[in-house]
Amino acid sequence: MLHRAIGVFDSGVGGLTVLREIMRRLPEEDLVYLGDTARVPYGTKSAETVRQYALEAGEFLVERGVKMLVVACNTASAVALPALRERFKLPVVGVIEPGARRAARSRKGRIGVIGTEGTIGSGRYVEAIHALLPGAQVFSAACPLLVPLAEEGWAEHQVARLAVQEYLAPLKKNDVDTLVLGCTHYPLLRNVLQAEMGDGVTLVDSAEETAATVADLFREQGLQRPQSGGQRAFFVTDVPTRFIRVGQPFLEQELSRVQQVRIGF
Amino acid sequence: MLHRAIGVFDSGVGGLTVLREIMRRLPEEDLVYLGDTARVPYGTKSAETVRQYALEAGEFLVERGVKMLVVACNTASAVALPALRERFKLPVVGVIEPGARRAARSRKGRIGVIGTEGTIGSGRYVEAIHALLPGAQVFSAACPLLVPLAEEGWAEHQVARLAVQEYLAPLKKNDVDTLVLGCTHYPLLRNVLQAEMGDGVTLVDSAEETAATVADLFREQGLQRPQSGGQRAFFVTDVPTRFIRVGQPFLEQELSRVQQVRIGF
Repeated sequence: MLHRAIGVFDSGVGGLTVLREIMRRLPEEDLVYLGDTARVPYGTKSAETVRQYALEAGEFLVERGVKMLVVACNTASAVALPALRERFKLPVVGVIEPGARRAARSRKGRIGVIGTEGTIGSGRYVEAIHALLPGAQVFSAACPLLVPLAEEGWAEHQVARLAVQEYLAPLKKNDVDTLVLGCTHYPLLRNVLQAEMGDGVTLVDSAEETAATVADLFREQGLQRPQSGGQRAFFVTDVPTRFIRVGQPFLEQELSRVQQVRIGF
Repeated sequence: MLHRAIGVFDSGVGGLTVLREIMRRLPEEDLVYLGDTARVPYGTKSAETVRQYALEAGEFLVERGVKMLVVACNTASAVALPALRERFKLPVVGVIEPGARRAARSRKGRIGVIGTEGTIGSGRYVEAIHALLPGAQVFSAACPLLVPLAEEGWAEHQVARLAVQEYLAPLKKNDVDTLVLGCTHYPLLRNVLQAEMGDGVTLVDSAEETAATVADLFREQGLQRPQSGGQRAFFVTDVPTRFIRVGQPFLEQELSRVQQVRIGF
């Protein structure tokens, strides 16, 4: 059982930021990644549809015998976590709880959250933060253009600066001291987001926080591999070409061994 | 047979610009529209995957007994038209030929084409224009951000102006006199595109050209309804909420009677 890989899935390339952080913290573990690139994005789709897709992605990884499931997608974490936990008999870690935990350390209790339409619409961050810090004031903003901007490689472009300025204006006005990057694409826009919010605002990267949670869980539950592994395998539901090209800055290294698979049939 | 509806499909809301033009030219015809919103967009997906999705969309409409199939999506027209024509025994009209025909009237034979990664990558516009005007110089640019900008309702926003400036720079440098809007979302950005190219450049709207082609075909082949119809029905593969909200500026009227269906199972 302990020899088994950690299964990580996302709608596409965004979850590679989570995978990268898990690789950093648990370099000895085997990892299997699935990007549902034939149906990406999840962020503009309904909760019902995303839940169905997440169950199919989970099914694929569980059938490959993983010892843990990491939902490296904020939208899927927001709408599908209970369904995944009910369906599969193994630890399922999402990206929202870890980010909310970090955000709840806000000094002033004034917290901004940015994400996809699906994530923000679900209200899950607000709920998770309130559970930990009942008096918190949480201000949310859906930022649909930031995912395509990150994928276009325009993270530092003037277009990204202007879009970020527009999206963050209401959060700045509400004087938040913490901003949750509630989408696994957003760490690529970190510089522009930090510049717009100012150095006094703490940015919470859900990729880093999730990897820390996974590592903690591994220690607490003794899930570590007894022998050194470190194998990585990548699966996608569309042809791998674009995933390999666009994914590289997310993983911060070359992508190899990427295979196309069919899920949900 | 003539009483049957025209079937129109797209990955999502973009094809509503084509539907709107068909409604204008053939108001008496019944229309059935399918938006594959559970798998949108097609423009960043591989030719193989888009072909599969297009066949499933076509299947759905053909089973409903339509008399003609209009592929109101440039990406699907670019990669799936031969497969659709082979599979279904009825007239299949795409958006690329009509746009190319209009572009081939370019005075200087210097033509720009903008579209999704899939459409531009297929080379189909270049091919279709060269078939009509062999000496034409065609300059293409993929513009991945323009679809999300149009869907965000930022068509006249400074962010759209800047993105358009960046994407069109190489086409302006090449002194094109005609610009093909090779994506059914782009008519919403018409003002910004025209302002950037200047009044001397002719914009070719594939929605208008396709509707004109459909109307011509109706006259030539005597496909018109014998009695007045004008019914419209809308189907989507995800929950209709977002389609109804985002689709309105594309159709330029309220969307009603939208039903969710499953395809490809």
